[in-house]
Formats: sequence, structure tokens, C-alpha cells
Amino acid sequence: MSSYTIVDETVLEKLRAVCGAENVKADEKTLKAFSHDKVAEEKYAHRPDVAVFPGSTEEVAAIMKLANELRLPVTPRGGGSGLSGGAVPVAGGIVLSLERMNRIIEIDTDNLFAVVEPGVITKELDGELKKHNLFFAGYPMSEEICHLAGNVAENAGGGRAVKYGVTGRYVLGLEVVTPEGLTLNLGGKRVKDVTGYNLISLFTGSEGTLGVFTKLYIKLLPRPKHRLALFGFLPTPLTLNKVLPALLADPEVQPSSIEFMDSLCIESVKQTAPKSDVEITPGGAILVEVDGPTLAQIEAELQRVEQILTAHGVSGIRKAESEDHLEEVWKVRKQVPWALMRIAPHQSLEDISVPVSTIPAMLDEIRDVSSRYDVPIPCFGHAGDGNLHATPLKPEAMSVEVWLETLPKLLSELYVKAAGLGGTISGEHGIGHKRSSYMKLVLGDAERDIMRRIKRAIDPNNIMNPGKILVDED
Amino acid sequence: MSSYTIVDETVLEKLRAVCGAENVKADEKTLKAFSHDKVAEEKYAHRPDVAVFPGSTEEVAAIMKLANELRLPVTPRGGGSGLSGGAVPVAGGIVLSLERMNRIIEIDTDNLFAVVEPGVITKELDGELKKHNLFFAGYPMSEEICHLAGNVAENAGGGRAVKYGVTGRYVLGLEVVTPEGLTLNLGGKRVKDVTGYNLISLFTGSEGTLGVFTKLYIKLLPRPKHRLALFGFLPTPLTLNKVLPALLADPEVQPSSIEFMDSLCIESVKQTAPKSDVEITPGGAILVEVDGPTLAQIEAELQRVEQILTAHGVSGIRKAESEDHLEEVWKVRKQVPWALMRIAPHQSLEDISVPVSTIPAMLDEIRDVSSRYDVPIPCFGHAGDGNLHATPLKPEAMSVEVWLETLPKLLSELYVKAAGLGGTISGEHGIGHKRSSYMKLVLGDAERDIMRRIKRAIDPNNIMNPGKILVDED
Repeated sequence: MSSYTIVDETVLEKLRAVCGAENVKADEKTLKAFSHDKVAEEKYAHRPDVAVFPGSTEEVAAIMKLANELRLPVTPRGGGSGLSGGAVPVAGGIVLSLERMNRIIEIDTDNLFAVVEPGVITKELDGELKKHNLFFAGYPMSEEICHLAGNVAENAGGGRAVKYGVTGRYVLGLEVVTPEGLTLNLGGKRVKDVTGYNLISLFTGSEGTLGVFTKLYIKLLPRPKHRLALFGFLPTPLTLNKVLPALLADPEVQPSSIEFMDSLCIESVKQTAPKSDVEITPGGAILVEVDGPTLAQIEAELQRVEQILTAHGVSGIRKAESEDHLEEVWKVRKQVPWALMRIAPHQSLEDISVPVSTIPAMLDEIRDVSSRYDVPIPCFGHAGDGNLHATPLKPEAMSVEVWLETLPKLLSELYVKAAGLGGTISGEHGIGHKRSSYMKLVLGDAERDIMRRIKRAIDPNNIMNPGKILVDED
Repeated sequence: MSSYTIVDETVLEKLRAVCGAENVKADEKTLKAFSHDKVAEEKYAHRPDVAVFPGSTEEVAAIMKLANELRLPVTPRGGGSGLSGGAVPVAGGIVLSLERMNRIIEIDTDNLFAVVEPGVITKELDGELKKHNLFFAGYPMSEEICHLAGNVAENAGGGRAVKYGVTGRYVLGLEVVTPEGLTLNLGGKRVKDVTGYNLISLFTGSEGTLGVFTKLYIKLLPRPKHRLALFGFLPTPLTLNKVLPALLADPEVQPSSIEFMDSLCIESVKQTAPKSDVEITPGGAILVEVDGPTLAQIEAELQRVEQILTAHGVSGIRKAESEDHLEEVWKVRKQVPWALMRIAPHQSLEDISVPVSTIPAMLDEIRDVSSRYDVPIPCFGHAGDGNLHATPLKPEAMSVEVWLETLPKLLSELYVKAAGLGGTISGEHGIGHKRSSYMKLVLGDAERDIMRRIKRAIDPNNIMNPGKILVDED
């Protein structure tokens, strides 16, 4: 990475000429704020040399042309809510913040499409869609801060993917500025399109390494009018192997969420919020949400869910009989990440994805690794699609130095075990630079080689978010 | 294409050494059968030099290594049901038929996955899935003959895409042999996966130009227990602009099919099957199907559909009150392509895809082009996703020579108009070589350049189904 140009006053002047002086910032506060995303470990932070805030596609294209000509690394940035370091400029250079390009261009109620600029906050779009009884189904749990283009760059998942799929399913058009500064117009408001290679899907989830998104066409659905949920305690983790196929193969229920948290997570919630009325069972807890057009229909669905769960020994079931009680049912699940963060600020929020039927086996592996390393690894996540946020926590007695030495070994073991079960190292958070050195544990030489060739074909000078997904030395 | 090696006896001997003599065929009958797919126009046919029938991934890999080394063009072939020439070996060389690799390897009822070899016939898988109350939602209308890997290679659509999406949504794992003969293992039974670039989506719909599929992991759904449908006549094409948004945005209905056929199609059916009880209205006809877990639920849905349609003047509604009458309701729609083929064997089945709200505008454009060229262009297809099979028919009085001269001009005009409405030249049939020369009408230089770079990156010697999607001279 030493072959990149240094950002000096001449470069800054050229950037100011493109975006205006007020949109080119190199002050300490900005550079510090843009040196990290939401990854807990400080070692994954890296400061940019300059933050640039373009206001239009043309400005983005001009910046990319300049960067490509001068060999300046460029890292696009959305809301900074990423969990794999995707927006962290590991080679320095330019952070390209899309926050000024935040217009909802159009809500098209005839074609059920939202056309938006990249920097629109997910929740903001949702508020707008609510007025039209429409719905973008792909949103992640950081909806209050995450930008739509960031969701697309990471192909974000979230708690509703079991019914609705992930972000990519809803991205049917993209305007993308390439590393060389050309603007691609891909797809649009047509629903079906087989005009050559599926570049939209290639760019989706490419973590800012192949281009900058400047406009998104998002397919909308009719907004489900009602939601209900229930929460209960599992006798053992193995119960999941009965409950999940039963829920997923039943034609009469289609849960919008099937969430899981293990007993360690429940304990953490109890510890940090002592008033929580939770049971500690060896199996942890499950949460199932249903949504739909009529209350009668989803009440019937929820009743069926309850039957399935109680038939398999799930206890202490709390049901949101109306939507007013929905938040109550979700409360424990939503407290989990915060409780873990309070207990252990030194932690690694992981994102293993395995075939659904192997969740109990994966939980066994996690417990085994946990006990051998003497590191607690609470685990929660989206059981309905096998996406487990195992979260190794630094024990209080362990020094930070030992923790930093231990963690990579521990993670390697977890990842190898996930791979052995037919799983992978990330289901929705991405690789970024946090997981890049582990790619070879789950992908072979041939697969990584094809990815590298694609990267080189689209970004021949390797200026677009370098150091992410695949590292040089692997 | 002149730089390819000629298939001589030495080459044949090497192929026999890989697959066995009985699986390497160069007889007239085989070569003729493998010189075309289901595209009507004879000019798109081209004979291979040899047809090879591998029995395993290893054999496919050995063939590709050999072909890459010797510079032999290889065109993979499924069931031959394609509609854009995807399986036609335009540069000669090897046709690689996957028909011997036709095992259903596994129906995994815990994870809801089918693992299959490439040559499994779609309907055969469906029959197997029926036994388990499971369902592969992505199947196209040629289900009786099409191979699953062919569906994936073309990213096939079909009549249910409006509810279930197209084939690609269900392909979560692929084993692919690259043009250089390496075997890639991508995805599998995990539902969520963001481990680097989405190669599965890149290979899906790549029409055999990037690799050979040797194993597929297909996500299944619970099988909808019941289906009902209705059929009615539209007062004018503009009625679609009222009916479609009403159907698509209504949270209480989720049609599995919304099919359309214009008045010319209806006339053709009447002409070829005089007993058909059809009305000729300026607006043509609409068919809506619903499916779901309980009869009560879809009866309510169908009633709502009927309300919406009658509110907008749709007349002569025939409702399948039970599933026994389903075929009757579908009959006219299914007769359309056969009726058109009988009336005019010289025809071009097109596959325009436009934003749903622009269907009436596109129908206007089609009528305009039709009257200027004096060529009838009946139009039918999947209205719910804007996918219109406009089908120019050679008038009896027009010579074949004039027809072949006229058609490209006429198609160019149709395509430019589709593009002007935000549409494209193919929604589900693919580009192949039938539409490759028109790619520049709907994609710019930058977009096509990126596609070419990807092709070169993965197939540096251009041996994999050459002459498809993008032609050299465009």
C-alpha cells in the first residue's frame, strides 16, 4: 500500500475545486470521527487523510477520476454503523462521506419503488413509506443511523430476513461510480432483467471495494398492517432442531423473525437489568414474530407458533396479545447486545452463518472453544436463518494484551468449525478488514482468485477501499 | 473466432479418454439435434463439432482443462428449452450436455434444501418435492423439459415470479467448473452469506459464458396447499394501469400470477381453437392466480381480486371455484404461444421487460411499430412484473427474405422504446446470440465494458460459450 500518493495541499486544493472548500475537511475532529465504524476493538481504527463530502453524482465521479489518476485510496462511508470495518480507511487517503446526498428522490406508488440518494437514513425512508402504507423489507437493526447505500454495500440482513430476505432482494437498480470515475446505470424500475451479467448483485455486498453508489432503486412491498410476537424459554439448545424445521416447513406460518439468545445472554441481561423477569434455562430463549394484513390471520399464525413451541417444551411463553405489548416481548432480545457491551467492552461481535439444522452443533462447538480458552462466548441472533452473533468477551482477569493474542486463535477455531458445518464467517456484517485474514478458512484458492480477478478487472489501480475483503498476503 | 482449434480425431480421442467413447458423439443426428434450442428462426442455429456427455464434476473439469489448453469453444447445454440461443454453439466446437448428470442428490427437509445435479428436469424435482409438501418456487413454463441448471444459467422467470421472484432467489449454492477447469464451491445450505463478492448471483444468468454448473443447492418453501384463479376481459389496455397497482399494493392479496394477453392473442386462440369461448375486447384479457395454505384464505383473496377487477370494468370473469377448474381458467393463456406458432411459424418471441406502470404505453408503442411495419405483433406475458412477450409474426404475404430484413429494424425500434420507458430487451429469456447485437441499445459503453472485463477475467481465452451476450463488434 506504499505506492499510493500522499494527500498534500495540492491534492486538497484539487478536491476543494470539485466539492467546494466547505466540503473538504482535514480537521482532527472529523478525521477521528471517520477513523472507525461500530467495531468495538480499537485496533481496527485507521485515520483518513481527508474527508470529502460530495453533493452530486458528478462530484463523486470527478473525485474518483482524480483519485484514480493520482493513485489515492478512497473509502466510501455511509452512517458508520458497520460491524466489520467496511468504512474504515485502512490505507488512509480519502474518506468519501455520502451524507450530503440524502434526498428521497421519489416514492413511486404505481410501481412500488423508492428512488433514493445513498445517504438517506433507513428509518427516515421508513417514516416516509409509512404514509403510503408501503414498506422496505430489508432493513437492519441499526435503522436509526444506517444509510441505505451502506446497507446495500454490506448486503445487510436484520431480524426480518427469515421472511423477507436480505437487502439485496430489494435493490433492483443502482447508479454506481466506478473506481475509474465512470457512471454505471444498472437496472431501474423494471422487476425482471437478464440483460447480461447481474452487476447489481455483484456490487451489492461488495463493501465499497468496487464502486460508489450514488442512486438506489428499492422495490417496496405493501406494508404489513399488524405484527405480533411471542417469547419463551427453550429447555435445551437441541430443541431448536425440532422447533426450527417445524416453524419453517409449516405452510400455515411464515414468521417474520425467529430470534435466539443463549443462557449466557439471558444471564447478562439479568445482570445488567436486575428487574428483568427472565428465566435461566440451559436452552436460552426464542422469540418469534409474525406479521400480516389482518389481525385475525396473524393471531391464528401466532397461535400455531405457540402450539409448535409448547409441543417441544418451550416454557414461560409471553405473548404480545396486541401490538402495544410488542416492545415488551422484544425487550430482552434488544437488551442483549447492550448488556454484553456493558459487561465486556473488549469483545468481538461475530456473525457466523450456518445451515439452520446445525445451530445446536455450532452452539456445542462454541461452548467447547469457550471452555478451552476460558473466554465466555454468549451467542444470540437470527436463528431462523442460522445467523449466530457469537460474541467472545474478554474476561475481567485477562489482560488486554493476552486478549488480543488469544482472540485470533479463538476466532480461527470458531470459523473452521462453522465451515465444517457448511457455514461461513459472516452472514450479514461483512468481511471488511476485521475478517479479511480469515477468508482462506472458508474459501479455497480458486474462489478467492476469482474474486481477486474481478476486483482487478473493475479497480485496476486498487484505489477503491483497499485492504478489505481479501488481503494481499493471504 | 477463427483462432479456435479444429476438432479433429486427436481431439476426439482425448475427449473419449475423459468421458468414454460412448459419451462422445459426432454423428449427424446428434449434431443436428444440438444445433438449436427453442428459438423459432433457423438462422440462429449452429452445429457443434462434437457433443460430449460427462458423468461427473471431475469429467467436466477435465474437459474444460483440455478445452482451455487447446482453445476449443465449449457450450454447456441443459434441456434445450432456451429462447435466446444460449445453448447453441455458434463457434462450433464442443457442446457439453449435462443430461447424464441428473441425480437428485438430496431433499433436506430439516434445512429446506434440494441438492441436485445440473441435468435434473424441473418437473421431476417438483414431483419429488410434492411428496415432502415442499416447493421450488422459481420454475419456468417449460418445466416438462427444462433442466434446473439451464434455469439457473438463464435466471429463468415464469408465471409465478410476481409473488415468488425468479430462479436466482432460490439458488444459494453452486458448484461451478470454471473455463480453466477449476472447481468452485460457492455457498451451500447456509441462508445468509456475505463472504466476499456474490459470485453465485454473477454466475446465475450468465448463460453458460462464465462456467459450467455441476451441482445446485436450491432453497425450498413449504408447498402452498391450494391454488385458485380467475380470468376476465379488460375494457382497454389502460385498465392495467388501474388494476395492477391496486393488486400489487393491496396488503390483503398477493397474487402468484398476473398474466396478460392482448386482443390479437385472443383472436389467435379463437382462430386456432374455434370452440374457445372468448370475447374480443380492445383490452385483451387478464388472469390472476392466488395460492396459499388454506382454502378459506385464498378464497378471500380471490374475492378481493374479483372486486378490484370488476371495479375497473373487467368483464366476463371466469373463476375457478375449485382447483379442478384451474386448468380451464389457464387454458386460453396457455394456448396463446401455440396458437401464434400455428398461425405464423416465422416469428420472433420477444421478452421485453418494462416498469409495470408503463405497460399500456409499451403496448401503444408496439401497436405503432406494428402498423408502420405492417407486421402483426400480438403480446402476452407476465403483467405483474412488466414482462411482455411481444411476438412479431411474419405476415403470410411477406417473403421470408423481406421478413429477415425487416425484423431487425422492427426489433431495434421496439427495444429503443422499451429502453425509453425504463425497460430492457429481456426479462427472463436471456440475450444469447439472438439479442447480443441489441445490447448497446439498452446498456451504455461503460456498463458493457465492465461486463466484458468480467468475462475476460474469468475466461481469458474466451472458450466458454463464445459469441453470446456481448458480441465482439458492438
